[in-house]
Amino acid sequence: MDTPKTVTVLGLGLMGQALAAAFLASGTPTTVWNRTPSKAAPLTADGAVLAPTAARAVTAAPLVVVCLTDHDAVRELLAPLADSLRGRTLVNLTSGHSDGARALARWAGEHDIAYLDGAIMAIPTAIGTEHASLLYAGPQDAFDAHHATLAALGPATHLGTDHALASLYDVALLGVMWGALNSFLHGAALLETAGVKATAFAPLANAWAGSVTEFVTAYAEQIDTGTYPAHDATLDTHRATLDHLVHESEATGVNAELPRFVRALTDRAIAAGHGADSYAAMIEQFRKPTT
Amino acid sequence: MDTPKTVTVLGLGLMGQALAAAFLASGTPTTVWNRTPSKAAPLTADGAVLAPTAARAVTAAPLVVVCLTDHDAVRELLAPLADSLRGRTLVNLTSGHSDGARALARWAGEHDIAYLDGAIMAIPTAIGTEHASLLYAGPQDAFDAHHATLAALGPATHLGTDHALASLYDVALLGVMWGALNSFLHGAALLETAGVKATAFAPLANAWAGSVTEFVTAYAEQIDTGTYPAHDATLDTHRATLDHLVHESEATGVNAELPRFVRALTDRAIAAGHGADSYAAMIEQFRKPTT
Ligand SMILES: NC(=O)c1ccc[n+]([C@@H]2O[C@H](COP(=O)([O-])OP(=O)(O)OC[C@H]3O[C@@H](n4cnc5c(N)ncnc54)[C@H](OP(=O)(O)O)[C@@H]3O)[C@@H](O)[C@H]2O)c1
Ligand SMILES: NC(=O)c1ccc[n+]([C@@H]2O[C@H](COP(=O)([O-])OP(=O)(O)OC[C@H]3O[C@@H](n4cnc5c(N)ncnc54)[C@H](OP(=O)(O)O)[C@@H]3O)[C@@H](O)[C@H]2O)c1
Repeated sequence: MDTPKTVTVLGLGLMGQALAAAFLASGTPTTVWNRTPSKAAPLTADGAVLAPTAARAVTAAPLVVVCLTDHDAVRELLAPLADSLRGRTLVNLTSGHSDGARALARWAGEHDIAYLDGAIMAIPTAIGTEHASLLYAGPQDAFDAHHATLAALGPATHLGTDHALASLYDVALLGVMWGALNSFLHGAALLETAGVKATAFAPLANAWAGSVTEFVTAYAEQIDTGTYPAHDATLDTHRATLDHLVHESEATGVNAELPRFVRALTDRAIAAGHGADSYAAMIEQFRKPTT
Repeated sequence: MDTPKTVTVLGLGLMGQALAAAFLASGTPTTVWNRTPSKAAPLTADGAVLAPTAARAVTAAPLVVVCLTDHDAVRELLAPLADSLRGRTLVNLTSGHSDGARALARWAGEHDIAYLDGAIMAIPTAIGTEHASLLYAGPQDAFDAHHATLAALGPATHLGTDHALASLYDVALLGVMWGALNSFLHGAALLETAGVKATAFAPLANAWAGSVTEFVTAYAEQIDTGTYPAHDATLDTHRATLDHLVHESEATGVNAELPRFVRALTDRAIAAGHGADSYAAMIEQFRKPTT
């Protein structure tokens, strides 16, 4: 392309600085703004233009990326900038709730601002590398128009047009992280009682986690079709083995709350008639509102 | 080697049949026995020798693999066979508790039987492939002597000499599986409320689970050294994001018990002074006996 793509970054916290640095590293002319302007120093040294006001920053580029503490800060900053943003694309990489994203999308729609809500599945040091994953939700054409520029931050996935999707995927994926971490920590505590180091357990846990992705793939198909044939193990079998994990936890004196919690959930699925089904049948318990 | 290695398999349930079939497929002369002899038919058709009694099966090979429903069944079967087993290596691939494994090891020691307790991290159809993982615990020399034969079942790991290790690793790894599955199912239920299919979520969840293995590796080092520097995110930050997951679960009407449980555990770690530490500090909560 002849016209170089340009970008503006609003917010230069830990993450905003990493975003701006990655844009600069990709050769994208970058304008930055931060409430506390001193944080821009390392970026201007690398060629970024520091705008004196947020409004001036916004009008410097067709693509405006905002990354602040939370949605409240974003609303507060952007409310007076609606006219400056008109006709541009706003990408919000601030973590928040899906209802906040939908509200911001409505506001953007009222002011002819193309809006993409985003989620960053990475720490600042991974931004600009293959190890970062950035998720975007909102109009396909806005994503397509700026995909090449946004790719400087890391591999980009367009989740769909519903603006709620970025926040929902964000927390769902963080949930997967906590699930993996907690069960690893519990296992590490258990094995520690037999003198096993966490660094000895980790490689086996990680290799096994790789096998578990195959169960996830298979169960996802079952969830979408609503049938749960037990090709591998039945819920009744899982239930029996959960008893072993509870027993070992109690016998070794480590915390048994996590396996007890999972066992109670499994009991409910079995009581609902899923004892001979695969573990995928547990989805029905997760669908039920907390009573 | 000149003398062909031979093996005996006691128990031809779903798993025992797969074990015997894998030995046969590797060219290992295999003797089998089962309480219900008819289950041996497909194996004898492939060259296995069906022994008329368990005692005759045991004396047919220096390596005896047993895989029955549970440890009670194993004790019942083996108790009268102590003299036949003397001088041989017994490998128990029946799932059970670590105390059961230690008891069986004591009994084996009293009768000069080399004993390896094992755990099978695979379903029967994966036995004999690279996708099976078999864990063994007990004397190093017994493992070394039979490693080549046992490798026919799938990649073999010797965990250490403590017989409890196979059962402990078994349940710890199954815990990792349940942790991953439950958090995936919860996320799938959440995303379903926005019309996302589980098969759309699964590839992202699995790719992200790959990133999480890097956190596990890093946290394992921290656990072993007992210091939890927050190079990525502090527990306080995790706590705030957990609130988002609870909020989204409640707002979309899916079950919020899992994130609430994790949040409560995190609250305890923060109350204990770990708010500025990494997630690895949660190990101390898992170490505490349930009150
Ligand atoms: N850090 C990570 O690992 C990570 C990972 C994924 C997602 N995220 C998300 O990225 C976002 C930013 O995180 P961070 O680590 O960069 O946080 P941070 O270092 O605390 O930076 C916060 C930024 O927000 C600005 N800000 C706060 N309130 C404001 C207001 N009312 N008006 C204008 N500017 C305001 C701050 O400006 P001042 O400099 O003037 O205070 C600063 O630029 C958060 O939503 C976070 O959840 C972070
Ligand atoms: N299947 C899996 O996916 C899987 C995966 C990992 C680990 N395992 C473990 O492997 C072990 C066996 O599982 P499986 O799937 O093969 O079970 P299974 O199909 O139910 O077979 C059970 C076996 O135990 C025998 N048996 C039970 N009680 C006995 C007794 N008192 N005396 C003699 N034999 C007795 C049965 O003999 P009969 O044929 O005469 O009834 C049969 O051979 C279990 O500990 C299981 O946890 C299984």
